[in-house]
Amino acid sequence: MKVSELGEFGLIELLARTVGKPRDDSVLIGIGDDAACWRASAGLALATTDTLVENVHFSLGYATWREVGWKSVAVNLSDIAAMGGVPRHALVTLGLPKDTDVANVSKLYKGMAEMANTFDVDIVGGDVVAAPQVVISLTILGETIKNRKALTRSAAAPGDEIMVTGSLGASAAGLAMLNRELEFNYHIAKTLREAHLKPMPRVVEGQMLARHGVKAAIDLSDGLVGDLDKLCIASGVGARIYIEQVPVHETVVQSFGVAGLTLALAGGEDYELLFTASSDISDRVKSDLPCPVTAIGEIVPEAGVKLLDEGGIELQLGDAGWDHFSKRKR
Amino acid sequence: MKVSELGEFGLIELLARTVGKPRDDSVLIGIGDDAACWRASAGLALATTDTLVENVHFSLGYATWREVGWKSVAVNLSDIAAMGGVPRHALVTLGLPKDTDVANVSKLYKGMAEMANTFDVDIVGGDVVAAPQVVISLTILGETIKNRKALTRSAAAPGDEIMVTGSLGASAAGLAMLNRELEFNYHIAKTLREAHLKPMPRVVEGQMLARHGVKAAIDLSDGLVGDLDKLCIASGVGARIYIEQVPVHETVVQSFGVAGLTLALAGGEDYELLFTASSDISDRVKSDLPCPVTAIGEIVPEAGVKLLDEGGIELQLGDAGWDHFSKRKR
Repeated sequence: MKVSELGEFGLIELLARTVGKPRDDSVLIGIGDDAACWRASAGLALATTDTLVENVHFSLGYATWREVGWKSVAVNLSDIAAMGGVPRHALVTLGLPKDTDVANVSKLYKGMAEMANTFDVDIVGGDVVAAPQVVISLTILGETIKNRKALTRSAAAPGDEIMVTGSLGASAAGLAMLNRELEFNYHIAKTLREAHLKPMPRVVEGQMLARHGVKAAIDLSDGLVGDLDKLCIASGVGARIYIEQVPVHETVVQSFGVAGLTLALAGGEDYELLFTASSDISDRVKSDLPCPVTAIGEIVPEAGVKLLDEGGIELQLGDAGWDHFSKRKR
Repeated sequence: MKVSELGEFGLIELLARTVGKPRDDSVLIGIGDDAACWRASAGLALATTDTLVENVHFSLGYATWREVGWKSVAVNLSDIAAMGGVPRHALVTLGLPKDTDVANVSKLYKGMAEMANTFDVDIVGGDVVAAPQVVISLTILGETIKNRKALTRSAAAPGDEIMVTGSLGASAAGLAMLNRELEFNYHIAKTLREAHLKPMPRVVEGQMLARHGVKAAIDLSDGLVGDLDKLCIASGVGARIYIEQVPVHETVVQSFGVAGLTLALAGGEDYELLFTASSDISDRVKSDLPCPVTAIGEIVPEAGVKLLDEGGIELQLGDAGWDHFSKRKR
């Protein structure tokens, strides 16, 4: 059946059925009314929104509908993670071509629900409109943890250590593999594919950063150098990265060799957290977080992000970080 | 300058400059971080989202960029109005073709800010992505008025009067005029154009409905009959409409004659409020609201929306209300 046969009403009902009853009993009105409604407690509210456009942000040529659903929620949750927040509610707007198969929409919803359920997020609202290609717009609402402010891009200070969670480059390597149809053994191919198509946002880790007193963070969506540059501009500082300390994903080293470093520095979409903190805080974070945490450099007063090799020689990265429009270095 | 030259970062800065500093000092983090953050008080939170796609929901062939910006915020505010709520914060995601002129994006933002400012709504977050055509996705967050629940689609009860604010059909008449390039005198053309391109959501009126104890409401986006049908299905009831009581917009009668009734019943996008209430409540609402309020029928136990003429004869409306996908009656 095509979505034009099921209609907008049926598609919204399908979403409501797929996501099920709200898990949180503070939700009073979920999918199906003019707006969602829930009992909110006093505190610091967080809200983020992001849109994924077919053939710009994803391709149904290599991603399954379920993976696209998963990722669309994951990348938005990652923004809440970067604020050290607790995600609570999600709203989803879909743009769909009229001849889209309803079975595929159902798979998309399932992927969304799967990722949302992982972090106890209720999808409380949805809208479906006709569009020439698939457009997925998500909004996630949440809050900071009790008595803690949100982590921001603007709180980095000279002397802070620059830390990243997990390892980098696997998502960009996965994209390169899928786009260029590169062949690797089963284990490598599966790891890279999942890194790109099913990222796991660092929601719990972000909250732990806030508890440990970290103030400055950003999630790595556009690439380490590009995102660090944004954080530095927002904070009015600069940064030095010691490239031999950058945690390039093991599978990327195996599959892409020396090119792995460029993927880790400029690739994007790893959805790891980059944060800065004094060394005593970062030491405590390192020993407490359930994932690897690596010091990769330091914040300095002078503007700009510098990449230094073991000998202290500055390296140039041709095209570090990307821009949704121009793919140029900023 | 094209948006590909200004880049994503510049476009987000342009949005931040255009909307200015938050009017509400509870906003702690506005545009430019991973998420927005504000001090929330305890109560009932409301959230709604809607997306407008170029050449599906609007055409830049006849609408100005500023009008498109205005309307994209207005239609979302209308959903909060239909819940009787107070809108507070907005998030905007734009999909833009790479060769879009930055001056046009600036006009779009101005139109958004203008409408948002009208109701003291702060645009606190935004994202810009590349897309093959203009896609505007808005999310509005708000709250119910103190000690009042939200108005819902599911609270209509048999015996309730069915009421509408304002008058109907002018938006659909405006769309017909613009699409078919119909010619009318200056006054008529201006009225119809503005009805379609610059709707004014009934935000204040919605809050007054909640204060007066109204429980059931919906905003008229898809057409009177179609939207009333949705409200009836959600409430498990039916409705009778006395068509001679339907307030067809005066200018529509002047310009479209008898066809005006069909535009009022099935045209859509008037963004008036339809609500149901016992006659004592609806009488009080009628005398208190600053806009016309008209009784057009009643809620009955039997499912279905019936249109009755003066003699009580049931009329059939060929294509009443529309569906974003199938344009079929539901």
